Amino acid sequence: MKWEDNIRKVVPYVPGEQPKNNDVIKLNTNESPYAPSPLVKEAIKNADADILRKYPDTNATLLVSELSKTYGLDEDRIFVGIGSDDVLALCFLTYFNSDKPVLFPDITYSFYDVWADLYKIPYKTMALDDDFNIVKSDYLCDNGGVIIANPNAPTGAQMPLDDIEEIVAFNKDRVVIVDEAYVDFGAESAVGLTDRYDNLVVVQTFSKSRALAGIRIGVAFGQKKIIDYLKDVKFSFNSYTLNPLTIAVGAAALKDDAYFKKITKKTVATRERVKKELKDLGFTFADSKTNFIFAKHESKAASDIFEALKAQNIYVRYFKKPRIDNYLRISMGTDEQMDKMLTFLKGYLNG
Amino acid sequence: MKWEDNIRKVVPYVPGEQPKNNDVIKLNTNESPYAPSPLVKEAIKNADADILRKYPDTNATLLVSELSKTYGLDEDRIFVGIGSDDVLALCFLTYFNSDKPVLFPDITYSFYDVWADLYKIPYKTMALDDDFNIVKSDYLCDNGGVIIANPNAPTGAQMPLDDIEEIVAFNKDRVVIVDEAYVDFGAESAVGLTDRYDNLVVVQTFSKSRALAGIRIGVAFGQKKIIDYLKDVKFSFNSYTLNPLTIAVGAAALKDDAYFKKITKKTVATRERVKKELKDLGFTFADSKTNFIFAKHESKAASDIFEALKAQNIYVRYFKKPRIDNYLRISMGTDEQMDKMLTFLKGYLNG
Repeated sequence: MKWEDNIRKVVPYVPGEQPKNNDVIKLNTNESPYAPSPLVKEAIKNADADILRKYPDTNATLLVSELSKTYGLDEDRIFVGIGSDDVLALCFLTYFNSDKPVLFPDITYSFYDVWADLYKIPYKTMALDDDFNIVKSDYLCDNGGVIIANPNAPTGAQMPLDDIEEIVAFNKDRVVIVDEAYVDFGAESAVGLTDRYDNLVVVQTFSKSRALAGIRIGVAFGQKKIIDYLKDVKFSFNSYTLNPLTIAVGAAALKDDAYFKKITKKTVATRERVKKELKDLGFTFADSKTNFIFAKHESKAASDIFEALKAQNIYVRYFKKPRIDNYLRISMGTDEQMDKMLTFLKGYLNG
Repeated sequence: MKWEDNIRKVVPYVPGEQPKNNDVIKLNTNESPYAPSPLVKEAIKNADADILRKYPDTNATLLVSELSKTYGLDEDRIFVGIGSDDVLALCFLTYFNSDKPVLFPDITYSFYDVWADLYKIPYKTMALDDDFNIVKSDYLCDNGGVIIANPNAPTGAQMPLDDIEEIVAFNKDRVVIVDEAYVDFGAESAVGLTDRYDNLVVVQTFSKSRALAGIRIGVAFGQKKIIDYLKDVKFSFNSYTLNPLTIAVGAAALKDDAYFKKITKKTVATRERVKKELKDLGFTFADSKTNFIFAKHESKAASDIFEALKAQNIYVRYFKKPRIDNYLRISMGTDEQMDKMLTFLKGYLNG
């Protein structure tokens, strides 16, 4: 058909499999193995369906005010969107309008280059070192902006906060975004740095540590001025996104700080234990500060282990991409789930 | 600050006021005056909070399958997004990639030019005639695509379906989008035409006739091939948007067809009655097939009437824009609300 000539053609993203089968041990999409806070359940039960006839509060005030209390930042320093994917894409659109390339690592979250292409933003990827660490000096040069996932995905490795600060300080004439999707599992957050650096935006998500991948809430923190730019762009083309149910769920989750601490602590404990066991089985990996471990086996190919696990109904993530095609990304499940995986691997690798 | 040089600067959209005061008669944003279906309330009550720990179903299968039953179209001919704003913006991005200008009326939904600018799409606006009708022949020429709101907003006027078909047929080599946000209030839908025209996409919303402005659901209908392009683009940069609560609410609303028919019928009856009363008061307007009336008074300036109504806590919409700055857009409320407005206007205009 001739009308197809002017259609945007893309490479569709292939998300981690979401098997319908409930017997599957799902360690492939970095979801929480724990349910959201009981307060979330209550918030849904108490939701007022009648208000849905009206457009939602564009400012998501209930959620933003709860975030303000939780993070000790004024409300005007906080922006919320439909998951951190939505927030990050809006950040690219708002902040990266230079002719110079935006910089990010060659191995990192797979949507950065997609959003850059989407908005016709020039970019340059900087190679991680052989241990999969971000090379700080690569970002101390002229550029059109910087985005760094910290801890990085899918490697799990953390860049020290001092190095992040050095990058932010050096790049004071452009915007630096720190994507902290996994920060709550024991890494250091750069949110505090936004007090001192007006060019810094820190993005977080409710998907991992708050056990709410399903609800789609992402957050950006920064000084009022830089957050205002983001709001202006967002409201200029889509005023209403978060619905009142989403807003209520997000606010309820934030109110249950004890539960949040409990489940993140459990995941960290599981991760540290699994690290030891994987090491004994001949795996190597960067020292993950996330809810996953990105591991390579000393002798067995990652693709083989991936298939063998899948045959056992244990799903992990395998990326057929340069430099990482011999690695598996293993999300932390419950202790019981991890034990099932480890027991199988012991037999499979040593058998 | 130097980093501000590369920030995208925009004119923020000013949505209709959402006063916190509950005494206000709110006729300014085309929301339904009626609550959503009781089945919506039930769906929220019965929602399973625990599934929120997982990423949602990217295909929103529950909602799409209900839409498929309601509209008699195969599931693969249906796309859903976060309100029709999200769906329409994605349509612009996907379908309008020509060097030739996309065509739409000079007076129409205010986001069309915003999305065109956002994605750097060339466009040309075609003047409505003096009675605010779309001039069919304007769209029978070479172009990069066509988008028509039918009924049009904020005029409320309908283009006959035969004329829509002629435009779709003439433009077989590019995509034609028909935005039917208001179609359920007595206008003719072009959804049936998608059986015969592979270049046609029809967009609708749950915000008006289904009394769910708050939930944010928009829908696109078309043949499988054209809908697939939309899905590919969407999934390429943001895989998860509609959350399970949204999906459940949308599906529940569709199941209650009797309620949907009841509230749209009530709104149509109110509108026809209000038309007569407004005419008697000296207003003129296009023959609206929507849930609003776009009216001009024979002697009193729209801006004055707007302010006078506001002082009575009755909010209507006034656009300070060329050609329409002497018009008011009045959303249909309940009969009781409309009577309060009419009683005031009688005194104000004849007093």
